[in-house]
Amino acid sequence: MPNKSDNVYSSLKTIFHEPNRLAIISALSSTSRGLTFKELKEECELTDGNLSRHLKALEEAGVVLIKKKFVGAKPRTTVQLTDKGREGFIEYLQALEEVLKKAAEAISGGEEKVSLPFPRIKPAGA
Amino acid sequence: MPNKSDNVYSSLKTIFHEPNRLAIISALSSTSRGLTFKELKEECELTDGNLSRHLKALEEAGVVLIKKKFVGAKPRTTVQLTDKGREGFIEYLQALEEVLKKAAEAISGGEEKVSLPFPRIKPAGA
Repeated sequence: MPNKSDNVYSSLKTIFHEPNRLAIISALSSTSRGLTFKELKEECELTDGNLSRHLKALEEAGVVLIKKKFVGAKPRTTVQLTDKGREGFIEYLQALEEVLKKAAEAISGGEEKVSLPFPRIKPAGA
Repeated sequence: MPNKSDNVYSSLKTIFHEPNRLAIISALSSTSRGLTFKELKEECELTDGNLSRHLKALEEAGVVLIKKKFVGAKPRTTVQLTDKGREGFIEYLQALEEVLKKAAEAISGGEEKVSLPFPRIKPAGA
């Protein structure tokens, strides 16, 4: 286990880090009512199979809630971010912000510090 | 191939995205003389085997240059970021910044827009 306080990189090792999952969770973050499978698929430009696999992993981790119901004769799948998912995603974004800040400082070579702070991602519930 | 102009998530699918590689490249970004294998290992809290595997992949992609020389009787391995690596990393960081911005806006629910812009990562050579 890393124990140096500044190893923020390990904090990125979450279910959110994979780029397609970032797209899915970011899309879901913008709405409390959730998105349909079709909306998510279009928003994230994923195939049915690929989206299904990611949603299954996210559901198993308690990050999303998947509801199936009939609208008339047609089945409709709706996906919502859970409270746990939202909180976890905010923590992930805070780590990502920190990593970006460190990298931006490193790239600027110490000669010219980037004028941080970045706008802080607000903690869950704030 | 995604062709929607706003699919920035696909831009994260690079050799830099894996958290340990982010740590390695970020550490190398801060110095033009490079870092020794030992320094990198300590800085990134990686095992010899894990660091070696990542460096091999990064070297094959032309992102780092690995030099071995003798200092007295002892071999010393030095790792430097190449110009190509630095440019690629800056592009990656720009995509990451964009993703973070989108996610921060989504999380804030549209009600309260986060006061962006983030400080822009400067283009290579600027």
